[in-house]
Amino acid sequence: MARKAAIIGGGVIGGGWAARFLLSGWDVAVFDPDPEAPRKIGEVLANARAALPALADVPMPAEGHLTFAETLTDAVQGADYIQESVSERLDLKHRVFAQIQQAAPDALLGSSTSGFKPSELQENSANPAVIFVAHPFNPVYLLPLAEIVPSPKNDPQRIEEAKEILREIGMFPLHIRKEIDAHIADRFLEAVWREALWLVKDGVATTEEIDEAIRMGFGLRWGQMGLFETYRVAGGEAGMKHFMAQFGPCLSWPWTKLMDVPEFTDELVDLIAGQSDAQSGHHTIRELERIRDRNLIGFLRVLKDSNWGAGKVLLEHDARRRVTAPDPTPDSAAPLVLAHMQVLPGWIDYNGHMTESRYLFASSETCDAFLRHIGAGMDYVAGGFSYYTAESHIMHAGEAKLGDRLTGSVQVLAADDKRLHLFIRIERGETLVASIEQMLLHVDMAAGNPARPGPRFWRVCVP
Amino acid sequence: MARKAAIIGGGVIGGGWAARFLLSGWDVAVFDPDPEAPRKIGEVLANARAALPALADVPMPAEGHLTFAETLTDAVQGADYIQESVSERLDLKHRVFAQIQQAAPDALLGSSTSGFKPSELQENSANPAVIFVAHPFNPVYLLPLAEIVPSPKNDPQRIEEAKEILREIGMFPLHIRKEIDAHIADRFLEAVWREALWLVKDGVATTEEIDEAIRMGFGLRWGQMGLFETYRVAGGEAGMKHFMAQFGPCLSWPWTKLMDVPEFTDELVDLIAGQSDAQSGHHTIRELERIRDRNLIGFLRVLKDSNWGAGKVLLEHDARRRVTAPDPTPDSAAPLVLAHMQVLPGWIDYNGHMTESRYLFASSETCDAFLRHIGAGMDYVAGGFSYYTAESHIMHAGEAKLGDRLTGSVQVLAADDKRLHLFIRIERGETLVASIEQMLLHVDMAAGNPARPGPRFWRVCVP
Repeated sequence: MARKAAIIGGGVIGGGWAARFLLSGWDVAVFDPDPEAPRKIGEVLANARAALPALADVPMPAEGHLTFAETLTDAVQGADYIQESVSERLDLKHRVFAQIQQAAPDALLGSSTSGFKPSELQENSANPAVIFVAHPFNPVYLLPLAEIVPSPKNDPQRIEEAKEILREIGMFPLHIRKEIDAHIADRFLEAVWREALWLVKDGVATTEEIDEAIRMGFGLRWGQMGLFETYRVAGGEAGMKHFMAQFGPCLSWPWTKLMDVPEFTDELVDLIAGQSDAQSGHHTIRELERIRDRNLIGFLRVLKDSNWGAGKVLLEHDARRRVTAPDPTPDSAAPLVLAHMQVLPGWIDYNGHMTESRYLFASSETCDAFLRHIGAGMDYVAGGFSYYTAESHIMHAGEAKLGDRLTGSVQVLAADDKRLHLFIRIERGETLVASIEQMLLHVDMAAGNPARPGPRFWRVCVP
Repeated sequence: MARKAAIIGGGVIGGGWAARFLLSGWDVAVFDPDPEAPRKIGEVLANARAALPALADVPMPAEGHLTFAETLTDAVQGADYIQESVSERLDLKHRVFAQIQQAAPDALLGSSTSGFKPSELQENSANPAVIFVAHPFNPVYLLPLAEIVPSPKNDPQRIEEAKEILREIGMFPLHIRKEIDAHIADRFLEAVWREALWLVKDGVATTEEIDEAIRMGFGLRWGQMGLFETYRVAGGEAGMKHFMAQFGPCLSWPWTKLMDVPEFTDELVDLIAGQSDAQSGHHTIRELERIRDRNLIGFLRVLKDSNWGAGKVLLEHDARRRVTAPDPTPDSAAPLVLAHMQVLPGWIDYNGHMTESRYLFASSETCDAFLRHIGAGMDYVAGGFSYYTAESHIMHAGEAKLGDRLTGSVQVLAADDKRLHLFIRIERGETLVASIEQMLLHVDMAAGNPARPGPRFWRVCVP
C-alpha cells in the first residue's frame, strides 16, 4: 500500500511538496482552507509532471492518489509524514502544530519555514521530538535541497527517518548542525537581497542589470560548485590559503560599509516592481515557470552526466529505484529486452516527435546494454578491444512522442569470429517504433583493425 | 591582418583574457615579469582550447599568434586593445598605466580590477578617457560577463568601441551606470563571503555544507535567472509587489544583525583551509578546473538550446560569426555542401570517438539544411507539412574525433511526388567519414499521411 503524506498549506511550496510525494508514488492529502488551493496545487502539479520525470532514467513509480481534506485532522490521519507550509507567522504555526499533534502526535512533522528555528517551532508543543525544519527551495519538485534543522529536543533517530524519506522522494537533506535564524541558504539570499535593494535604491543598477550580473557570471559557477570550491579553484595550485591571503583583506575595504538595512518604503517597492515589469513583464509567470523548469532540467541533466553535485543525487536516486531487468536467458534466440527508456524533452524535434538521431541513440543504448551483457562493456574497452558499428539500417515504423516509455530489444542474427550481426527493436509497449539492423566489428583499438574476440563471447553470441 | 590585444599580467585572469582573444582570432602579446607566466598561460590556454569551441556551432576562426613580450612597451606597441590584470594594488596599477600610456596613449585600456572605481584608476593618468573597468569572471574563457564601468572622464564613444570588441570575443559587456567600489557582482560575492565566514567561524556549517546549501538550491536558479526574476516567479501570479510585501519585512528580523566583519585571524584561515581540503582535497586543482569547465559548458549549451540568458549571448555570437555557405547551384547533380560542424565533447563516446548516434545527427543537420534550402524549413512545417524520414542506411567509413571539422553534403538520388531519396556524405576534409542514404516521405502532419508537396520543390529536388 502507498504511504501517505499530509501537506498542510497548499501554496507554491506546499504544492511542490505535494507534487514530489505524488510523483514518488505516495498518496497525498492536502489541507488548505483557501478555496483556490485545488487550482493552485493543480498548476504546480502540471508543471511537476512535465518536469520531474525528465530527470529520471528509470521508470517513475505509478503516481499516488491526491485528496483535498475537509479538515486538518482528516488530512493528517494516518499520515507517515506531515509537511507544514503555512505563512511565516510563528503564532499561526504554533496553532497548526497543536491541532496536528492532537490527531497525529507521533508523526514526523517538517516545517517549510525559511526563518524560524526548530526550538521556536517546538515551543509549547505536545511532542517537540518530531517537529523539525525541512526547508525546501522553489521549485520544490526540481531542486533537491532540503535544509533539515533539528533542535536538541528532537529524537535523532526520527530525524534520520525523515532524511531517509526525503531521499526517497529524490531530495538532498542537508543536516544543519546548529540552529540559527534563517538556517544557511537564506542567510546568503538575505545578504544578497539587502545589497541588491541598496543598488536599486541608489540608482547604481536596475533589477535587470543585477540579474545579468548574476546569471552571466557567478550564478553559473554556483550551480555546480558552491562558494568555497569555486574559490579553491580560483586560488589555483597555491591553494585555499593563498586565495584567502589574497582576498581576505578586501573585507576591511570601504565597500563593506553599506551593511545597514535600506528602509523598505513604498517608493522602493514601486521602483523595484516597475523595473521588474520592464525586465520580465513580456512573459507571464506561467511562461517564466516553464522556461525556468526547462533550464533547470537541462542543468540537472548536465550534472547527472558528470555525476556531480545535484546530478549525483539524481543518479543515486535512480539507483535506489532501478528495476532490475529479469535475467535474460542467453541460450534463447528470442529478442532480449535490454533497455528501458523514456522520451525526454531534449529528444523532441520541431515536429513534436522524437528527433531522428535519437532513434539511433535508443538503439545504441540497447546495443551497449547487450555488449555489457556479453562481457564487452567499459572494462573490456579499457583492455583495448571494442565493437565498432560498421553499418546500420534504420526502418521507421512509428513515431515516439514526449514521455513515451520505450524498450530496446536485441536479436542476434549472426555472429562469427569478427562480426556481430544484430537486429534491434525499439518498441512502445507492443508497438514497433523503429527497427535497426546493425553490423558490428570486433576491433583491436590500438591496431585499428578488426580482431578475433576471446572465446567467452561465444556462449551468448551464437544464436 | 589579425588585430592585436596586449595582456598585462599573466595569471589566471590575464590567461583567460589571452585565451579568449587568441581563440577569437586576435594576436596576443602578454607581458608579465614572472618567469612562470608562459607555463601558467599555457595551462589556461589548454583548458580554454578544450572548452570554448564546445560552445560554438559555427567554425572557430584560426587561432591568433601568442607572444611573450620582453617589456611592457613591446607588448602594447600597436595594440588595438589592452587589458590589465595585475595585482589589486592601486599604486601598482597607476605605475603600469603610466608606462602603458607612454607607449600607447590612445589605446583602449581595460582593467580587470574587482574593487577599484574607474575614477581611481584614472588618477594622474596621461589619457583618462580610454581607461575603464572591464571586470571579468573566472573562467574568463567561458563566463560571458564583463562589467564595464566608465567614469565621467571617459569618452562614451571609446567605451562603446570597447564593448563591441568584447562582444566580438563572445562576452556580455554589462555597462554599469554609476561607479561604486566593487561594481555590482562582487558586492554580492562579498556579502555572501562575509556571511559564510561567520557561519564557519561560529561552527554552524562547514565549507562543504555551505557549498551544498548553494549548489543544491539557489545556485541552480541563479545560473539562468538572477535574483529578481527568480523572486518574480516565486511571487506567482500576484506579482512582484506581492512577493515584496511578503518577504520585505524579513529585512528587519533579527537575522540581519550579523553584519559586522568577522576578524580575519590565522585561526579562521586555518579552519577554512582545513575544511576545504577535507571537502575537495581528493581532486587536484586541474581536475576541479576540468570538472567545472565541463559543467559550465553543459549549462551554457542548455541555455543556448533555450535561447536564454548566457545562451542568448552565445547564439548572437554565432550569428555574427556564421560563415554563409556559398550559394549552391541548384540545377547541378553534384553534392551540395550544406552543413559545417565541429565534433564537440558531448559527442564523444567511451571509445574516444564520435558516438554512433551523432553520425546520424550530423546527417540530420545536413538534411535539415537541405530542406530549408528547398523551402521546407520551419515555416513550412508550421503550415502543417513536413518531410519525415522513413528509412536510413548508414555506412561507417572512418572515425570522427573531438574537434574534427565535418562537412555534410547532399545528393538527390531520386524524387517523386511523395518521396525524396537522398545520399548524404559526412566528410572531414576530403575523407569520407560516413555516408547515409535516406528515404524521406512528404507528410500532411494533421492527416498523418504522405501527401504531395507543392510545385515549388521540384526546381531543386529533381536531379
